[in-house]
Amino acid sequence: MALQPLNSSLPPTIEWRDDTLYLLDQTRLPQVCVVEAADSVEAVWRAIHELRVRGAPAIGVAAAYGLCVAMQHERQASREAFLARLEHHAAYLDSARPTAVNLRWALERMRAHARGVAAQTSTEVYDALVAEAMRIHREDVELCARIGEQGRALIAPGSGVLTHCNAGALATTGIGTATAPLYCAHRDGESFRVYADETRPLLQGARLTAYELQQAGLNVTLITDSMAPTLMAQGLIDLVIVGTDRVAANGDVANKIGTLGVAIAAKHFGIPFYVACPSSTLDLRTACGVDIVIEERGADEVAQLAGRRIAPEGIQVRNPAFDVTPHALVTGIVTELGIVRAPFEANLAALFAKGEGA
Amino acid sequence: MALQPLNSSLPPTIEWRDDTLYLLDQTRLPQVCVVEAADSVEAVWRAIHELRVRGAPAIGVAAAYGLCVAMQHERQASREAFLARLEHHAAYLDSARPTAVNLRWALERMRAHARGVAAQTSTEVYDALVAEAMRIHREDVELCARIGEQGRALIAPGSGVLTHCNAGALATTGIGTATAPLYCAHRDGESFRVYADETRPLLQGARLTAYELQQAGLNVTLITDSMAPTLMAQGLIDLVIVGTDRVAANGDVANKIGTLGVAIAAKHFGIPFYVACPSSTLDLRTACGVDIVIEERGADEVAQLAGRRIAPEGIQVRNPAFDVTPHALVTGIVTELGIVRAPFEANLAALFAKGEGA
Repeated sequence: MALQPLNSSLPPTIEWRDDTLYLLDQTRLPQVCVVEAADSVEAVWRAIHELRVRGAPAIGVAAAYGLCVAMQHERQASREAFLARLEHHAAYLDSARPTAVNLRWALERMRAHARGVAAQTSTEVYDALVAEAMRIHREDVELCARIGEQGRALIAPGSGVLTHCNAGALATTGIGTATAPLYCAHRDGESFRVYADETRPLLQGARLTAYELQQAGLNVTLITDSMAPTLMAQGLIDLVIVGTDRVAANGDVANKIGTLGVAIAAKHFGIPFYVACPSSTLDLRTACGVDIVIEERGADEVAQLAGRRIAPEGIQVRNPAFDVTPHALVTGIVTELGIVRAPFEANLAALFAKGEGA
Repeated sequence: MALQPLNSSLPPTIEWRDDTLYLLDQTRLPQVCVVEAADSVEAVWRAIHELRVRGAPAIGVAAAYGLCVAMQHERQASREAFLARLEHHAAYLDSARPTAVNLRWALERMRAHARGVAAQTSTEVYDALVAEAMRIHREDVELCARIGEQGRALIAPGSGVLTHCNAGALATTGIGTATAPLYCAHRDGESFRVYADETRPLLQGARLTAYELQQAGLNVTLITDSMAPTLMAQGLIDLVIVGTDRVAANGDVANKIGTLGVAIAAKHFGIPFYVACPSSTLDLRTACGVDIVIEERGADEVAQLAGRRIAPEGIQVRNPAFDVTPHALVTGIVTELGIVRAPFEANLAALFAKGEGA
């Protein structure tokens, strides 16, 4: 299945073609743009583990196809043996990144589908698995498109839009989440500017967002994270839109480190601050942001760049990977079901009920 | 003259010893700590031009000694010829960095001293020049020390202090400006934490501030610029103190890009935001911040990090080198004459009058 949602020279993040899984290696972007076949379950595991495929939605799709890659070689087995091997490979793939919620979700859905399908032979179960992986893939593409349409009207003609990190096409198999309204506006021929924060320490904005928007022909300008407030002061930013890893029941938003600073500056300058995500990112079991545990990563991400040291030896480093933006700083949350605004607690609960009923 | 103000393993930024000028090469820090003799006026010019010596106060001192280096070889000339060559060399050194105010100020002071000194021979004028350069050097050291004493009480026991860029010992020949209160508190045995923003794009925080504070034995932690608001939210920051390139008559502060974002976040969290500088940095002829022209630098500083390309080829980049923090976000300005607080316009004018009278 080749789902190419963008009029872009960029290859798809993930492609399933001729019973083979192809992954765009995101660790080598933007210098090298290479697609590689992941021809064993170990290769898929490594690609997820080493962030060659990244972004929660993309990881889920890669894991679903990864299970297909694994099971290709088990089709000679009995149905029982096939299902036992499936459990084994699913557990293995699940270990590639322990905290990626979509990874476990996609694998669980694939396992449930295999158990429930009315198939007699292993080959039939395998075919059903491939069909289910394609559905997960297509759903991700559609989800992004619907987020794009919901947020499309936020992109005013001639405006400037700031984004942080990469909640883009490269993080999904569609047109991204935060980037989806941008791609829709661009498709419509709207003229507007995008500013991409480089997003230290791992530079997803410089390496990925700037790259994918440039490749798709959008007017994108790269800045360091520290420049956003000055561009706001200069009147160049009319809207901020970012992705999120988790939204708490009260509307507090966990996202890549640096998002909080952007939100505070946006509030200071009276600039709307939007968050884009599928409704599945809403976590009603998490009451508020203080309940979200923030991962602290290794010092080398801050003290080095690609093996090159930029700070003194032995320096102490803090490296929180995410931050929490309080809902008071959030103008709205763009989901495939609509845009949620304050009061968030009531409106998120209502959206969730709507999503469950859908 | 060896003026070593710090109990630090770091060599002096600038040293004049045995009629020779020694400069610490700041472009190679923190990986390589090397002091080199600048044994010709061309070598001094290159050191200033290539930022091996940087920071407005340090540049002024280097230029003053640089003129001595130049005139060493002119002592055989007549007094008139000597003074003519002095003008020539001063104009040459002045061209090393066109926007550094202290460079022109120091050269003008040296020229005026040479013209005014009651000396018969070129050797006597040369000796007077060396004495004047040493005075400029000593005054810089003393200015830093006085800023440190004025700001010392801001550093509370057990507190966390954030700084941005390098307004440190390496930017001066003393204990720095923003860092001066920190060094004074450390000298007094105070226990406190310093957080250094890495300061993209040129990483002066990571390369210089983290390094010089570490070498002097302070408890310093390096963070990316984007992490400061999160550390504030976590209650780790009790005070912000930064340097400045120019303070307008109304108290608006021009400083390294990223300062504005820090000031906005500090205001949001109710954290005091101080600026430290000699009173000579107050520019009463500039009415307010919008009158300050912000230098836009080359794209490679953003598109590369430590010499490595991190962004796609051909990407558009904004790279304002400085930003302007409105006085409404400034708690106080620490000078050698005292701490100025709101209303800034009246209080800065009063301070300036006090300085003129001193």
